[in-house]
Amino acid sequence: MTDRAAIEGELMDVVRELYPICRSITGNGVRETLAILGRYLPLRLTEVPTGTQVLDWVVPREWNIRDAWIKRSDGQRIVDFHAHNLHVVNYSVPVSGRFRLEQLRPHLFSLPDQPDAIPYRTSYYADSWGFCLTDRQLRELPDDEYDVCIDSSLTEGSLTYAEALLPGDTTDEILISAHVCHPSLSDDNLSGLAVAALLARELGAESRRRYSVRILFAPGTIGAIAWLAKNRETAHRIKHGLTLTCLGDGLPFAFKKTFDGNTELDRVAALVLKESGQDHSLVNYFPYGYDERQYNSPGFRLPVGSLMRGQHGQFPEYHTSLDNLSFVSGKGLAESYDVLRAMIGTLQRNRRYVNLAPYGEPQLGKRGLYRAVGGTGLPGLQFAMLWVLAMSDGEHTLLDIAERAGLTFDAAHTAATLLLEHELLAHDKVDALNSVNTMEKASP
Amino acid sequence: MTDRAAIEGELMDVVRELYPICRSITGNGVRETLAILGRYLPLRLTEVPTGTQVLDWVVPREWNIRDAWIKRSDGQRIVDFHAHNLHVVNYSVPVSGRFRLEQLRPHLFSLPDQPDAIPYRTSYYADSWGFCLTDRQLRELPDDEYDVCIDSSLTEGSLTYAEALLPGDTTDEILISAHVCHPSLSDDNLSGLAVAALLARELGAESRRRYSVRILFAPGTIGAIAWLAKNRETAHRIKHGLTLTCLGDGLPFAFKKTFDGNTELDRVAALVLKESGQDHSLVNYFPYGYDERQYNSPGFRLPVGSLMRGQHGQFPEYHTSLDNLSFVSGKGLAESYDVLRAMIGTLQRNRRYVNLAPYGEPQLGKRGLYRAVGGTGLPGLQFAMLWVLAMSDGEHTLLDIAERAGLTFDAAHTAATLLLEHELLAHDKVDALNSVNTMEKASP
Amino acid sequence: MTDRAAIEGELMDVVRELYPICRSITGNGVRETLAILGRYLPLRLTEVPTGTQVLDWVVPREWNIRDAWIKRSDGQRIVDFHAHNLHVVNYSVPVSGRFRLEQLRPHLFSLPDQPDAIPYRTSYYADSWGFCLTDRQLRELPDDEYDVCIDSSLTEGSLTYAEALLPGDTTDEILISAHVCHPSLSDDNLSGLAVAALLARELGAESRRRYSVRILFAPGTIGAIAWLAKNRETAHRIKHGLTLTCLGDGLPFAFKKTFDGNTELDRVAALVLKESGQDHSLVNYFPYGYDERQYNSPGFRLPVGSLMRGQHGQFPEYHTSLDNLSFVSGKGLAESYDVLRAMIGTLQRNRRYVNLAPYGEPQLGKRGLYRAVGGTGLPGLQFAMLWVLAMSDGEHTLLDIAERAGLTFDAAHTAATLLLEHELLAHDKVDALNSVNTMEKASP
Repeated sequence: MTDRAAIEGELMDVVRELYPICRSITGNGVRETLAILGRYLPLRLTEVPTGTQVLDWVVPREWNIRDAWIKRSDGQRIVDFHAHNLHVVNYSVPVSGRFRLEQLRPHLFSLPDQPDAIPYRTSYYADSWGFCLTDRQLRELPDDEYDVCIDSSLTEGSLTYAEALLPGDTTDEILISAHVCHPSLSDDNLSGLAVAALLARELGAESRRRYSVRILFAPGTIGAIAWLAKNRETAHRIKHGLTLTCLGDGLPFAFKKTFDGNTELDRVAALVLKESGQDHSLVNYFPYGYDERQYNSPGFRLPVGSLMRGQHGQFPEYHTSLDNLSFVSGKGLAESYDVLRAMIGTLQRNRRYVNLAPYGEPQLGKRGLYRAVGGTGLPGLQFAMLWVLAMSDGEHTLLDIAERAGLTFDAAHTAATLLLEHELLAHDKVDALNSVNTMEKASP
Repeated sequence: MTDRAAIEGELMDVVRELYPICRSITGNGVRETLAILGRYLPLRLTEVPTGTQVLDWVVPREWNIRDAWIKRSDGQRIVDFHAHNLHVVNYSVPVSGRFRLEQLRPHLFSLPDQPDAIPYRTSYYADSWGFCLTDRQLRELPDDEYDVCIDSSLTEGSLTYAEALLPGDTTDEILISAHVCHPSLSDDNLSGLAVAALLARELGAESRRRYSVRILFAPGTIGAIAWLAKNRETAHRIKHGLTLTCLGDGLPFAFKKTFDGNTELDRVAALVLKESGQDHSLVNYFPYGYDERQYNSPGFRLPVGSLMRGQHGQFPEYHTSLDNLSFVSGKGLAESYDVLRAMIGTLQRNRRYVNLAPYGEPQLGKRGLYRAVGGTGLPGLQFAMLWVLAMSDGEHTLLDIAERAGLTFDAAHTAATLLLEHELLAHDKVDALNSVNTMEKASP
Repeated sequence: MTDRAAIEGELMDVVRELYPICRSITGNGVRETLAILGRYLPLRLTEVPTGTQVLDWVVPREWNIRDAWIKRSDGQRIVDFHAHNLHVVNYSVPVSGRFRLEQLRPHLFSLPDQPDAIPYRTSYYADSWGFCLTDRQLRELPDDEYDVCIDSSLTEGSLTYAEALLPGDTTDEILISAHVCHPSLSDDNLSGLAVAALLARELGAESRRRYSVRILFAPGTIGAIAWLAKNRETAHRIKHGLTLTCLGDGLPFAFKKTFDGNTELDRVAALVLKESGQDHSLVNYFPYGYDERQYNSPGFRLPVGSLMRGQHGQFPEYHTSLDNLSFVSGKGLAESYDVLRAMIGTLQRNRRYVNLAPYGEPQLGKRGLYRAVGGTGLPGLQFAMLWVLAMSDGEHTLLDIAERAGLTFDAAHTAATLLLEHELLAHDKVDALNSVNTMEKASP
């Protein structure tokens, strides 16, 4: 089996293992999920008790569910939580009783335009209950009396999130954040969890890294808010961040920009996606979607973008039972894995250098840097070296150079590495100082 | 009669009443005009005596005219000031005598390309005289001797301008300026006078306003210069200004930008015209045209744009007797009235706000701001609230928000008002301080 | 003979006289060339001894050549340096011996795609030798033994460059730099030498100039580097510079921008080329090509662009014997002469002015500036005066005005001159101070 086939298989294995679990914004489904993910990266769990004030919000009660069903008067289960956990409106209060069809109807949700799909509905922050079913099922319900049971509990408990920190040379961080609250939906967001977990495993195996890398698995909205509340003083260490979602489908890539829209991350994402050869689009920031809206909020303004393939609400499988295991593929997941790895790798290597022979052009020939590249004309590496020398004035990063010269980032980096070896280039002091300053700022 | 019909009718009434009066840069025609306009807004008149130095200029003698004619040798008046005041070159010195046709010819002006139009000509700042007539008339003149009379006077007197100040919460001002010197020309500029006067009446009825609003009716060039000379120390209070001209025709709107080209006013004008659904164009600043050239001059650099429909010299009726009462319409005037009102309203409401719950997204649900809007999906008002919250960091105005979010200004303002009521937003202190500073600056 | 024909003839005469000389980066060919150019401008020669460290480089040995040939075994010279100096690889070490064809082959260079052209090859900084010949010649060589001789010398000597300084009101300089190292190639770069020398003659005849103008004739790369090494402390006086190359062909003009890309020079070049009516393109900076790469290097960052017609490596005659006397024309050279003169003239005249009557518009009529231009409508000069007055706030240069108003630079300059005469404009003090400051900075 090739490495490629291996990673594709592993990514699908993670999605497949997590798929049956019924998650919500609180409860054991999240814990069970985090336990599985914890095999791939050193996750540290945090439990935030019900009732804790987190920024403008309060952690809600913990929700757990054991069973739920609707039975016809003849005792046959016609809607069954164990058949599909989307059948229950997520966060439903417990209910038990007998209802006539017209009494039941306000609690039943279907998608008339997609008669074979079960919708995904939630009732967070509202004491209600309900069932989701296909429109075909709904239309076939006889005028009967129905026994209804939702064996759920809403109790004092806690909200759970988990994070891993891969320490770098500085306390400056790259954040990878994926929401962990959706039940049996593959693309949204088991795909993000799988990609993040397996990439963290690979990154963790590196001997050294410049930025620290933080991976955060938290329930959507309230989880990110809880994390931000607990890390309000140090959140500024996040210099670049990405929320991950819908990465397993075969749709074109989309990068949703940060609030600023022109940060280093935004430019790295554009370059990496261009170099990837993948169809993609760059989407302007808007203040809804996933947890990037929390990170980018005015009090934090962390430069966090969002990497996705299928976009929020824009594909028919979105938030329905059609977002199942066959909607995602190892190929789709692995392509996302590659793009994410390239983004992080570019951020980690994007430095400023200083040309140590800045007066005129240094004589590359006497250092064997013509021989190193040989041939006639202007070969790629020599071209890259000339650009790196011309722009390494302490103002420009390798990203600036790649963008302006039309080089790949790797070409610019290879040239810089060679020039560094030949002592024609040095790391920029300001670049190094920045990190130290950050470390100082980081200790309150 | 609807409100719409009422305002259309009133605007036309003003134009119709002012049309017969022979105005010039000085003289009783201006005073008579200002007396009529003074019915609609509290005008304060200023008389600047002949010979007064105003900036680089000197106020010229006062011109008045009683009669003027050309008679054939048989005594028949073939050109008669009382038939149309455009027949006399405006500011002509008095003349009385008998002329042969070839002697008269250098004093006769017509438009060969528009044989039925009387041109509008002036001889300000030059001691000369002349008559304007249709080219058809001119070509039919027999080789005769003609008795010529211009019963005008040029005497020590004064130049007259009038202004109204609608006081606001600050001494910062919005200036509305319209030239009052043209004789019987409807679009240029009775239209501007009518729109300004009636809108001032409406604005004056408001209980309170943020910016003070100043309306200035002054003769072109020398009148604006006289006003600037008298108000040189306080002119900086003008934070936004508009000259009004040619607002009664049915031509597409044009906004001529300020010298800077990207001031708040320029952006408000662009947004309001876009939202109006009217055909329009944005025209770059150029240092001629109307009195915006005085306000924008380097010593003042007041951000004054120009709102017009037909543009300076670009339509055939321009500066001819064809710019008559049938060239303008109540509909054309009322559309301009609406656009101008929207511009002023947008400027008045364009504030910076500060999100009081800037860390993460505030929980709108617990404040009933979800219920307030109801429904599923992301309804317009909720969308607007999220954008206002996301951008209210003390840096961005509602205009910034509307432009970036693709909201109408009203939608952004409605959202801000709702959030202000729920104490999720406050007025920006800097915004408030600016006004105080301006008030201090304003007292010399 | 017209002036036009005269300058075309003179330009071609210079090219024709210099064509036969065998130049290299060092040696007597350069000195002989500079002696001829010295008839047109006051050249001061600098000899930099072999072995001198110049920035990152070392001045190489001096190369001279007397003869070179390949003889067939029957004694016939089949390749002869005296027939064309491109036949010898420039900088070849001396050689003398008998070679079989297969031994000789690695030392023979031709262009299979251009069978009748002799290529131009060099072996600077490498101890080797070779001959260049047409591919037709090469393919016809019989399998013979050949007597080979290169009667060259590589000795301790010096590198020669020459410069002329036309002093201006300030020590701020405009640099004109042309490489002087290529042997019998007309366009690259006898064209640049001829245009620079004759234009310097014309500029030298002016009674006064604002910027000093420096003309530098130096061997490519090492010559510019030697000059920069000797003038490292004062090189900052160069405020604008141009390298000249390939100016005699009839191809469209190209201006290669400075590293910054938006300096005053870049904008002047764009305006002058647009006004010239010549086909042209603006090319972004790249760190190879001619000596602009040395001037723009990070240690100097001198805003030096490059003016050319045929572009580096992009026309078939480039660096071959086809770049001969018939490839260039007096017309092509004189058009370049005009463009270069206009660029320098625009830079010399591009000042900031201050409107002395900045409050409102000054009354041009009372100063005869309406009569001066006469007519009706808005004649060009009056239009230009209004723009110059409107923008002369100490921030904007004539170039800014011409660009924004859509005026030619000459129109803006004429208007400014007229307004200066009428004391409505003054030279900007900061503009004057800059020059003084520069003079102070210039004395180390």
